[in-house]
Amino acid sequence: MPVPSTTPQQQAESPPPTEPALLAACRHRQTEVPVWFMRQAGRSLPEYRKVREGIPMLVSCTRPELVAEITLQPVRRYGVDAAIFYSDIMVPLKAVGVDLDIVSGTGPVIAAPIRDAAGLDQLRALEPDDVDFVTEAVRILVGELGDTPLIGFAGAPFTLASYLVEGGPSKDYARTKALMLGDERLWGELCSRLAAISAEFLAVQVRAGASAVQLFDSWAGALSADDYRRFVLPYSRQVLSRIAELGVPRIHFGVGTSELLGLMGAAGADVVGVDWRLPLAEASRRIGRGYAVQGNLDPAVLAAPWPVVAERTRQVLRSGAEAPGHIFNLGHGVGPQSDPEMLARVVDLVHAEGAEIRAEVREQLGLGASS
Amino acid sequence: MPVPSTTPQQQAESPPPTEPALLAACRHRQTEVPVWFMRQAGRSLPEYRKVREGIPMLVSCTRPELVAEITLQPVRRYGVDAAIFYSDIMVPLKAVGVDLDIVSGTGPVIAAPIRDAAGLDQLRALEPDDVDFVTEAVRILVGELGDTPLIGFAGAPFTLASYLVEGGPSKDYARTKALMLGDERLWGELCSRLAAISAEFLAVQVRAGASAVQLFDSWAGALSADDYRRFVLPYSRQVLSRIAELGVPRIHFGVGTSELLGLMGAAGADVVGVDWRLPLAEASRRIGRGYAVQGNLDPAVLAAPWPVVAERTRQVLRSGAEAPGHIFNLGHGVGPQSDPEMLARVVDLVHAEGAEIRAEVREQLGLGASS
Repeated sequence: MPVPSTTPQQQAESPPPTEPALLAACRHRQTEVPVWFMRQAGRSLPEYRKVREGIPMLVSCTRPELVAEITLQPVRRYGVDAAIFYSDIMVPLKAVGVDLDIVSGTGPVIAAPIRDAAGLDQLRALEPDDVDFVTEAVRILVGELGDTPLIGFAGAPFTLASYLVEGGPSKDYARTKALMLGDERLWGELCSRLAAISAEFLAVQVRAGASAVQLFDSWAGALSADDYRRFVLPYSRQVLSRIAELGVPRIHFGVGTSELLGLMGAAGADVVGVDWRLPLAEASRRIGRGYAVQGNLDPAVLAAPWPVVAERTRQVLRSGAEAPGHIFNLGHGVGPQSDPEMLARVVDLVHAEGAEIRAEVREQLGLGASS
Repeated sequence: MPVPSTTPQQQAESPPPTEPALLAACRHRQTEVPVWFMRQAGRSLPEYRKVREGIPMLVSCTRPELVAEITLQPVRRYGVDAAIFYSDIMVPLKAVGVDLDIVSGTGPVIAAPIRDAAGLDQLRALEPDDVDFVTEAVRILVGELGDTPLIGFAGAPFTLASYLVEGGPSKDYARTKALMLGDERLWGELCSRLAAISAEFLAVQVRAGASAVQLFDSWAGALSADDYRRFVLPYSRQVLSRIAELGVPRIHFGVGTSELLGLMGAAGADVVGVDWRLPLAEASRRIGRGYAVQGNLDPAVLAAPWPVVAERTRQVLRSGAEAPGHIFNLGHGVGPQSDPEMLARVVDLVHAEGAEIRAEVREQLGLGASS
C-alpha cells in the first residue's frame, strides 16, 4: 500500500489517533473506510426476532434495556463501526400523543390523519420528559459501546408528514401532495411542528451521548427538485441547523434522490446518504466537495452469489474513494430476508480492503490522502 | 400567436394536413400538443367499472368487443388525441401458457416463478393465433377511431421478467437482481424470450392497424445505469428494433428513470416517456435532440385544487416546448381515485393553450417552429 505523502500542515490537521473511523469520515480526514448498515438492527437477525417475540414494535422502543440490547446486537455480530439507535420514526409522534400504531406487515397507521388546521392540534412540542426512555437507553448504550459511535435516529418532516396526512404508507403520496400544493400555509405549519419534534428527538439523543445523527427522509425521492426545494428543504434545514448547534455530524438520507442530492446537502448535512442508483463518485460531484457520502451497495445484491457481492462491494469502495469522505453502507435498509452471513462478509471485506482501495484510487486521481 | 417563419425546405417537409397530432409530435413536426393519459382506460372511469363488473381482468382482455369499448371510453369522454390499447402486460405471457392470474388488490401472481433453466420451458414463442382476440379488437377499434391513432401496448422484458422471477409484484426486486447478477446466461435467455414475445405482441397490434406503440418498462428505474445498460437495454432493443421494421413510432416509458433516459432512447425509441421527477426540458437535454418526449404531470397533482393543476399543466407545456416533440401525458398512470372531471379540464387546457405556449417558448428560445 502506497504511503500517502503529507505536508506539515496536513499532519497538523490529522485527527487524534483515537477518533473513530465514522467521525473521521464525516470530517474528511479518514484513513479507514467505516461501515455500518441502515436497519442493521432488525428482522434479518435471529437474535433480534428472539428478543422481540411477543413485544409490539412501539412497545419495544420504550424499554431502555431492550432498545440497548437490540442496538448492540449488530455491533457484536458484525463489528460494524457504528451503532444506530433502535427506534421508529413514529416514536416521537406517539410520544406527543398522536394516536398511531405500527401494524406488522403494513407499517404506521394513524387513527386521525391530519388534513386540516384542526388536525395540527395533535402535534404539540416534544419535551425531553416525553422520551425519557430514549435518554436512558442512550446512556446505557454509550457506556456499553466504548469507542464505537452511536448514531442518533429520526424521521424528517416530509416523510413524517406523508404518514400523518395519508394515514399510513402510500404509493403515490396523492393526499400529501394535494395538501402541500393546495394549502401551503397549513403544510408549512405542519412541517414546522414536525421539524421541531424531530430536532428535539435528535437533541435528546445527542445530549445523552450520541456522536452523530442520521435524519431519514425516506420518501423525499417522490418529489421533483423544484417541489423539494420549496416544500421540504426549509423544514429539513430547521432540523439540521438545530443539530449543528450541538456540534455532531449530520447524515441525511432518502431513497430515489439522485436529483435531490445537492439540495439535501444544502439543507444542512455533513454527509449525504445515496441509494444504489447513482455511483458515489457521480453523487459526490452533484453534492459538492464540502460533503462526505454514505452508501451505496444495492441491498438486493446481497441475494447474489458472494463473488458478485464482493465485486460490487469493491466497486462501491472505488467509487466512494472519489468523495472527500466515505462511509460504507447499503443504498437502503437491510431487508428482513437478508442473510446475516453475507453482511458479515461485506463488513470483513470493507475492513480488509477499504483503506487500501481508497488510498490507491485517491493517489491515481491525484486527490489528497483525505479531502 | 406569432406565425413561425418557414424556409421552403421546411415547407416541403411539412406534414400532410391530415396527420394526427400524436404522430406529428413523434416525428418532430407538430403544431398542436397532443394529449393522452397512461391508464386513461381504467378504474377511474365509472363507465369502465360498469362494463368490467364481474369480469376478471384477464378475461376482459380476451373479449374483443369489450376491449374495444373500454379502449374507446376515454376517447369519447375526454377527446384525447390517442387511444391506448386496453390490455395487461401479462396477456401475452398468459397466451403462451404461463400459469398466472391478476389478483385484484395484489397484481399479477405467477403459479411457478421462473428461477432456473427448467422454468424457461414456460416461455414458448408467441404466435399470432395465440392472441387472435387482439387482432380482432384492434380491427374493431381502428374502424371506430377514425383519425384518432391507436397506440399498441406491451411490457418490456425487464418488467415482465421481474414478475416472472419474483412470482408477483415486488418492492426491491431482490430475486430478480440475484438471478440477473448470479446467472447472466439464464437472465439473457429469459429476457431474449420475453423480448420476442413482446415484439410479436406489438407486431400483431401494428399489423392489425395500430399507428404507434408504447413499450412499458415500468420498473426499470429500480436499476443503476450500469446495470440497465448491461442487463436490460439489449433486450428492450430487440423489441424496439423489431417494431422499427414496421415503420410506426415507438414510445418507451418507465418510472424513476431520470438517470436512464438517454439509454432508454438509445434502446430504439422515437419518444421517451418521462415521470414527474425531472422537468421535460432537462429530460430532453439528457435524451438528446433526436427524440421527442412524453409526459409529465404528476398524477398526484390531480388531487390538488384546479388553479394548481392548471398552473402545473402550463409548466409542463412550457418545459416540453423545449423538446423537439412533446406529447402531453401524466408522469405515471391515472390512479383509480383520480377525478375524471379534472382530467377533462387538463385535456381542454392542453388543447386550448398547448399550441400557443409551445410556439411562444420556441420563438423565445430561438428554436424552430418544430425540430
